[in-house]
Amino acid sequence: MDKKFDLLTFGQALLRLSPVRDDRLVRGETLIRQVGGAELNVAVGASLLGLKTGVITKLPSHEMGAYIKNTIRSYGISDDYIIYDNGKDARVGIYFYEHGAYPRKPNVIYDRKNSCFENININEFKDDMYKSTTCFHTTGITLALCKNSRETAIEMIKKFKENGSIISFDVNFRANLWTGDEARQTIERILPFVDIFFCSEDTARLTFDKSGDVKDIMKSFTQEYPISIVASTQRVVHSPKVHDFGSVIYNAYQDEFYTEEPYKSIDVVDRIGSGDAYIAGALYGLLHYRLDCRKAIAYGNAYSAVKNTIPGDVPSSNLNDIDNIIADHNMTEGYRSEMNR
Amino acid sequence: MDKKFDLLTFGQALLRLSPVRDDRLVRGETLIRQVGGAELNVAVGASLLGLKTGVITKLPSHEMGAYIKNTIRSYGISDDYIIYDNGKDARVGIYFYEHGAYPRKPNVIYDRKNSCFENININEFKDDMYKSTTCFHTTGITLALCKNSRETAIEMIKKFKENGSIISFDVNFRANLWTGDEARQTIERILPFVDIFFCSEDTARLTFDKSGDVKDIMKSFTQEYPISIVASTQRVVHSPKVHDFGSVIYNAYQDEFYTEEPYKSIDVVDRIGSGDAYIAGALYGLLHYRLDCRKAIAYGNAYSAVKNTIPGDVPSSNLNDIDNIIADHNMTEGYRSEMNR
Amino acid sequence: MDKKFDLLTFGQALLRLSPVRDDRLVRGETLIRQVGGAELNVAVGASLLGLKTGVITKLPSHEMGAYIKNTIRSYGISDDYIIYDNGKDARVGIYFYEHGAYPRKPNVIYDRKNSCFENININEFKDDMYKSTTCFHTTGITLALCKNSRETAIEMIKKFKENGSIISFDVNFRANLWTGDEARQTIERILPFVDIFFCSEDTARLTFDKSGDVKDIMKSFTQEYPISIVASTQRVVHSPKVHDFGSVIYNAYQDEFYTEEPYKSIDVVDRIGSGDAYIAGALYGLLHYRLDCRKAIAYGNAYSAVKNTIPGDVPSSNLNDIDNIIADHNMTEGYRSEMNR
Amino acid sequence: MDKKFDLLTFGQALLRLSPVRDDRLVRGETLIRQVGGAELNVAVGASLLGLKTGVITKLPSHEMGAYIKNTIRSYGISDDYIIYDNGKDARVGIYFYEHGAYPRKPNVIYDRKNSCFENININEFKDDMYKSTTCFHTTGITLALCKNSRETAIEMIKKFKENGSIISFDVNFRANLWTGDEARQTIERILPFVDIFFCSEDTARLTFDKSGDVKDIMKSFTQEYPISIVASTQRVVHSPKVHDFGSVIYNAYQDEFYTEEPYKSIDVVDRIGSGDAYIAGALYGLLHYRLDCRKAIAYGNAYSAVKNTIPGDVPSSNLNDIDNIIADHNMTEGYRSEMNR
Amino acid sequence: MDKKFDLLTFGQALLRLSPVRDDRLVRGETLIRQVGGAELNVAVGASLLGLKTGVITKLPSHEMGAYIKNTIRSYGISDDYIIYDNGKDARVGIYFYEHGAYPRKPNVIYDRKNSCFENININEFKDDMYKSTTCFHTTGITLALCKNSRETAIEMIKKFKENGSIISFDVNFRANLWTGDEARQTIERILPFVDIFFCSEDTARLTFDKSGDVKDIMKSFTQEYPISIVASTQRVVHSPKVHDFGSVIYNAYQDEFYTEEPYKSIDVVDRIGSGDAYIAGALYGLLHYRLDCRKAIAYGNAYSAVKNTIPGDVPSSNLNDIDNIIADHNMTEGYRSEMNR
Amino acid sequence: MDKKFDLLTFGQALLRLSPVRDDRLVRGETLIRQVGGAELNVAVGASLLGLKTGVITKLPSHEMGAYIKNTIRSYGISDDYIIYDNGKDARVGIYFYEHGAYPRKPNVIYDRKNSCFENININEFKDDMYKSTTCFHTTGITLALCKNSRETAIEMIKKFKENGSIISFDVNFRANLWTGDEARQTIERILPFVDIFFCSEDTARLTFDKSGDVKDIMKSFTQEYPISIVASTQRVVHSPKVHDFGSVIYNAYQDEFYTEEPYKSIDVVDRIGSGDAYIAGALYGLLHYRLDCRKAIAYGNAYSAVKNTIPGDVPSSNLNDIDNIIADHNMTEGYRSEMNR
Repeated sequence: MDKKFDLLTFGQALLRLSPVRDDRLVRGETLIRQVGGAELNVAVGASLLGLKTGVITKLPSHEMGAYIKNTIRSYGISDDYIIYDNGKDARVGIYFYEHGAYPRKPNVIYDRKNSCFENININEFKDDMYKSTTCFHTTGITLALCKNSRETAIEMIKKFKENGSIISFDVNFRANLWTGDEARQTIERILPFVDIFFCSEDTARLTFDKSGDVKDIMKSFTQEYPISIVASTQRVVHSPKVHDFGSVIYNAYQDEFYTEEPYKSIDVVDRIGSGDAYIAGALYGLLHYRLDCRKAIAYGNAYSAVKNTIPGDVPSSNLNDIDNIIADHNMTEGYRSEMNR
Repeated sequence: MDKKFDLLTFGQALLRLSPVRDDRLVRGETLIRQVGGAELNVAVGASLLGLKTGVITKLPSHEMGAYIKNTIRSYGISDDYIIYDNGKDARVGIYFYEHGAYPRKPNVIYDRKNSCFENININEFKDDMYKSTTCFHTTGITLALCKNSRETAIEMIKKFKENGSIISFDVNFRANLWTGDEARQTIERILPFVDIFFCSEDTARLTFDKSGDVKDIMKSFTQEYPISIVASTQRVVHSPKVHDFGSVIYNAYQDEFYTEEPYKSIDVVDRIGSGDAYIAGALYGLLHYRLDCRKAIAYGNAYSAVKNTIPGDVPSSNLNDIDNIIADHNMTEGYRSEMNR
Repeated sequence: MDKKFDLLTFGQALLRLSPVRDDRLVRGETLIRQVGGAELNVAVGASLLGLKTGVITKLPSHEMGAYIKNTIRSYGISDDYIIYDNGKDARVGIYFYEHGAYPRKPNVIYDRKNSCFENININEFKDDMYKSTTCFHTTGITLALCKNSRETAIEMIKKFKENGSIISFDVNFRANLWTGDEARQTIERILPFVDIFFCSEDTARLTFDKSGDVKDIMKSFTQEYPISIVASTQRVVHSPKVHDFGSVIYNAYQDEFYTEEPYKSIDVVDRIGSGDAYIAGALYGLLHYRLDCRKAIAYGNAYSAVKNTIPGDVPSSNLNDIDNIIADHNMTEGYRSEMNR
Repeated sequence: MDKKFDLLTFGQALLRLSPVRDDRLVRGETLIRQVGGAELNVAVGASLLGLKTGVITKLPSHEMGAYIKNTIRSYGISDDYIIYDNGKDARVGIYFYEHGAYPRKPNVIYDRKNSCFENININEFKDDMYKSTTCFHTTGITLALCKNSRETAIEMIKKFKENGSIISFDVNFRANLWTGDEARQTIERILPFVDIFFCSEDTARLTFDKSGDVKDIMKSFTQEYPISIVASTQRVVHSPKVHDFGSVIYNAYQDEFYTEEPYKSIDVVDRIGSGDAYIAGALYGLLHYRLDCRKAIAYGNAYSAVKNTIPGDVPSSNLNDIDNIIADHNMTEGYRSEMNR
Repeated sequence: MDKKFDLLTFGQALLRLSPVRDDRLVRGETLIRQVGGAELNVAVGASLLGLKTGVITKLPSHEMGAYIKNTIRSYGISDDYIIYDNGKDARVGIYFYEHGAYPRKPNVIYDRKNSCFENININEFKDDMYKSTTCFHTTGITLALCKNSRETAIEMIKKFKENGSIISFDVNFRANLWTGDEARQTIERILPFVDIFFCSEDTARLTFDKSGDVKDIMKSFTQEYPISIVASTQRVVHSPKVHDFGSVIYNAYQDEFYTEEPYKSIDVVDRIGSGDAYIAGALYGLLHYRLDCRKAIAYGNAYSAVKNTIPGDVPSSNLNDIDNIIADHNMTEGYRSEMNR
Repeated sequence: MDKKFDLLTFGQALLRLSPVRDDRLVRGETLIRQVGGAELNVAVGASLLGLKTGVITKLPSHEMGAYIKNTIRSYGISDDYIIYDNGKDARVGIYFYEHGAYPRKPNVIYDRKNSCFENININEFKDDMYKSTTCFHTTGITLALCKNSRETAIEMIKKFKENGSIISFDVNFRANLWTGDEARQTIERILPFVDIFFCSEDTARLTFDKSGDVKDIMKSFTQEYPISIVASTQRVVHSPKVHDFGSVIYNAYQDEFYTEEPYKSIDVVDRIGSGDAYIAGALYGLLHYRLDCRKAIAYGNAYSAVKNTIPGDVPSSNLNDIDNIIADHNMTEGYRSEMNR
């Protein structure tokens, strides 16, 4: 943890445009602009918890890229490895998001193709970047977006690994980007380098053809690949506005599973990015507490639970906020205030 | 279904003015303007589901009428039978709406009197209008508003009937517009012409002095009048923000009752117009599927349930949206995604 | 000035609904709600300058009336003489307002008919009201609205006059409410009781068939009727966003005319109610300074000029604000700060 | 109840600044400004229910003070006893408020120090104020704020008591203003003068070292001091968005306890000020119905329950609203409409 | 003018996203969504003036396309010739717009590439479309966007011409889409078919290498090609908020030039689309008044001038609005009201 | 320019709260939150132009401080020298700002006292800070706020000077913070250390008792103290919405004065911070171009002119924006586009 960064993440940054809460994409003149992207969300969360964090991405040099850069900076994240595209057609990926209310589901429309991120090139980054971080994180989305981002990501994983970084990877399977077969074949190329592996039970079954109970599945990855930690989140969706959230983590060295009482009846304001917040919390626990999976579970679950209450993709809670939530979650008796004041 | 229109509805269009969500009518400078009206809401729903639909109404020729006309057009509805009033005092009816939160109920203040709709005159419409539609729909509100609208509506019902249209009628009893006795006496004038009759159990008991269980009541209407279909909705209000919704339909030809599992714990954002959305869905089912009451129940319940999640009076979901909601509602096992993407 | 009130005004209070600045009435979901009415605007201005002020009007007892009552109270005005209408159709008059930008003019759509104000009845007021004020003010709008408001206003003028109040009257001719002939005939019924008379040059010519220059016209009213003070405003409209404003006042006792350098190139944000603000300022000058017409001109012109910069119908500047504006307007040399801080 | 006022309250008025609903204090450019303060909230509630009410406080004479004054006036409250501070550094106390959503708690940041209220001086008020009211109310917050407000409050309590006013006091313990010991010692100085005493069970235990069940505790205060009425509220917080609310009142003269079925599953929009709304309702019941504790319970519980649904600190429901809520709450059978129209 | 349509326009529809007025693209969470596109803007204007109008374009079938379709419909325009793209990557072109204030210029960032409009194919349209309109209009933007749109547009021009439509074409040169040379070479392919030609003086000089005064230039086009009407607009930009606007039209049959006094000191709220509004007005004059160039000048200049005062790309004024503006513009003496009421 | 920073500025950061544009502080529920402060504004401008910049200040550790810190970071400014105050009463200074419109002036109400900045202490900063920057900038506001900030600032000036930094100082006289005499006496303590001195002509006359023309005055400072550069801005306020802006710079080494054609008729959206933007531009010119006063004038005038068009206190234009504005300003002939696209 004495490198320049504790965590670097690599992926596309997106603009999200949403109608004013409860209204629909098909109507209305006002849209709310927010910044997101699976890997960026992880970086924001990790930075708010106190890790030295940076993002590796590519943005247009015009005002829409500057908006994203400024937002990233405002969360205390380094922009040292952001590449700018001056091309006159340089664009940032966009997605449109509509909140749900039972029986209406949340709805996403992607317009992320042909962003300048797809022109990213391994040669745009200098070699010292690979020595600068304790941990490197990316996701299946980056592998799926286009050939260019896929090969760049794989190359980066290898170079960071060579330079001693811990490699963290989230499958984050999206059926609208690739098929299960494509995902499996590609991910198998990088699993030999992965140290910390995030994969949900459903994805493991559908994409990797795993069977057995969730613990069998988690353990099986560590038997096939030199993975140290596997984490699986468990979300129960009662309605678009009420979820439960918990997770299981497996430590292959210790051959031990960790879990805790899930958060029940979360007041969901915005569920986007809550999976990424889990990863931010879990990586904080693992990196700050020498792979202590109890800490990873506690920070991961709390961070994901509270992210569901925050409008937008990125988390907004700092270490103090999360520590208070964990303390409340673990409290079994005594006076529990209903308000911070 | 080979006429110019599948459905024409006749009634007053209103402007609704509401405070920003959760705030009160008695305070605040910002009001949200929306377009509504029981018959208009039905037309919007039917048009979004794919029926060729038009509205028969009268609007001021100034900007406030143009606003309503433009909104109607935006939902793909014909404005062929909208009459314009150039009078310098021509006004549009208004109502003020405040959302509820337990124990505060939603609150409505009407300012709908003396709108130019009350000057409507049967002579303003040409005879070919009566040949142009498969189905004609109006409600008890139009009968109750004023003598002029009442007599025009009754005359229209007769003329459409003569020209072979299916006549659909929703009692929609409003105690602030007339008494139960006035309602009953007037509605009995038109029941001999009605084919599809929408009437809630409460209204049947209080207004028509019916007794017995809901099925007895529904059937009794078809025994007194040549009604083909009777539909009754069943709403359970747990709080202003949580409702259940279901319905029963009786087919007199088949002497058969239809129902299905209600939608439970709907996240109510705006319950206004959800009864009209039911009618839109039910009429779609009946008109598009040759009086198939199973389709009517399925589309009616789903459309009403989801309308509760949409701000404003009019529905906003298209056929694809509703088909997905029905599929989810009917799903008993298998993977059910929590988001459309 | 030792009565309970310095000024009572009588007239209809209206709700104004406007689109967000620069947008059009024919579009957009958000409307801004503001309270206005010629006589109410005068009362607000007089109260902000420090006069003890009340309004005589009638409002619905529901939330829309309460909104107006609360707004009136917030300006420090007495609601002792507001009558409430519990009728289920009681409504408040409304008007829709669109701001202009050259070459698009501001646009007004009235929906003020059938408000509960039209049911006002002289018997709803107790006799001690007529002894309670130094000055009573109303306008030609109240005379024009309907027979009921006309006869009530005329009766009130007589009763206040009998009880020693100064009678102030603003012609405020509106061609959409009555014809010039109707206006002249009605106003001639009350001119024998009027002490302070507000009439623009154009109105004097078109409605009262006056000719000659503005001074001849002003003087002629005092020769035909026992009027003490005549005031005429002079607005030059360069564009909807740039006006000049000045005025002339004639004191019949002294046979003297007063004027001052007009305010030039006013940054017009909202011109509605600027004429009423003039009257508020002029009455303040006349009532607080024993009919000192120099004070009336100074306060009238300054209050009208600055009202043009305030969104909504009613003024928002207090005595200190206006004194500073007058001081700046009269300053011919020395350091003039561009900001208050 | 034939004095000029039924109720005067004494305390600091605050500006509250909150992000747009669901967003966080740490982000976002738009803040919503609302007026609050424990004693002011009580006055607003009492005034809306029909009591003649005034507030005793001190405000800056600039626009921020005028904003608060105008808001107070808009609720029909007298500003006769508001003192204005012309000092160039005169400030109004501020607090920042963030709404909660489970597992994120509501959050308050105070910036209330050094407001001009802290300069309040007993000599700024004339002697006739002490003869003007049936009841005087203040809270432990005023005692805790600073020495100046504490000594002024104690002096006022004595003077109002001498002049025959009923003294009402709410402990309202805030650990961020003083310690439990400081609170107890100070409050013991005023308890000999208190007639109506509001104290929660928790506070009684923690601050006054009481033990036994809640009834023992409530009774014990009346045994030590000449207190007539003791009221304790009981809130159950299921989540920041769902509370239950009830209360117990003890009448020492009758030696009788009163309670009623609590309000369950309240849809909490904004819980701030709901305790003060309870006091407003309870005082209305006690003052308007000659210390009838059944009325106090009914109005107190209903007003607090519904305040939770109102954005901002102050209540917004009038007597008619509350009577309807009580009627619904007490209804055990029959048709209960889900909407007021 | 007895065809189904008076005017069909062909081009890309765009979503515009702008910050709240006066703020910058690089900051702020709220964006305002508006619909635009050079050819769509012309269609909206023509429809508002009363021409039977339709648009030929291609939109995604998802909610963002539906939003545009609904907006188009709300202006009374036919959507008969809108093609929908169900592809999962179907996107709508976007541009970001920032208003200017001297010395800051308005700023546009385009993200219009790879929209589904670029997949448009001549075979998606049936032959009867070409017989359905009196006039067909497109612009240089459609020729410049991509090869597909260029060849489709050229093919359409030929087919409409064969079927007797008047061909209207606006050069609308955009240096960010193509070079002057590319523009000239492409436009020369279609000039043999053009009847009404819109080209500014600057563009004529820079793109077509024309010299001489503006009249020489305009005439020269009609000498080289069988063009009937040439129109050139003349805008003087005093600041981003103040423009003058006028135009010259040349009628080749009559060999006559038409002009009128320009509109001076227009209060510019939003200049985007004001050139397209000119074309809408001019085409209305030409089509409704049998190529009367005096009408074309009057309607074109007035429509463009007033469009500058309307937020968004599309006009919002109807025939009555424009007739009033023309009447005011032509008025040289008499009373000119400053407000419509 | 090879130090860690090009520029460090020292001063209080403030929250500004303003009503929605054109509305008044005395009304309205919505306030817009912005970050400002004379020295912070300079830092933002310098950073946007490309200088490596940091701020030295003290903020509360709670969310309101975090909001400011995040905003500062978003402009690319270092937060290395921000000190956090964990005290429970730690507050951030606030000011309320109302925009003007002739004849209403902009209005400022300060609530900046007792902020945690006033507890700043020279010992909170490590010695290596003084070696880290090419230039150090502060203003008379920091000297005036309180004894603590004054003595800290003076001590910092001396230490930075000792370590070879260029010392920049802006008098920025505020009559509400201190008297002219206090200002003069304090500033004379630091003038021996100042290299770049910003002082307006008015301030020089009123505070320093200077006489003669502006050039005499500017030169006189360099004769009394070892100042290298003196800059004076010249603003002409036509109305709150229209200003001219220019400046004069004197280089004492060269004994030469520099000026250029002022920016005329600037569209003022928000004039706050435009003086600080001048300093940012001028310092950029001087630091980046080795004290080239031509560059300082060009960047200073352009940056100040354009800041007037930006809502909020801080600039928002980058080097490319400013270079374009300068190019346009210097253009005397040729085609000047009215829009960037």
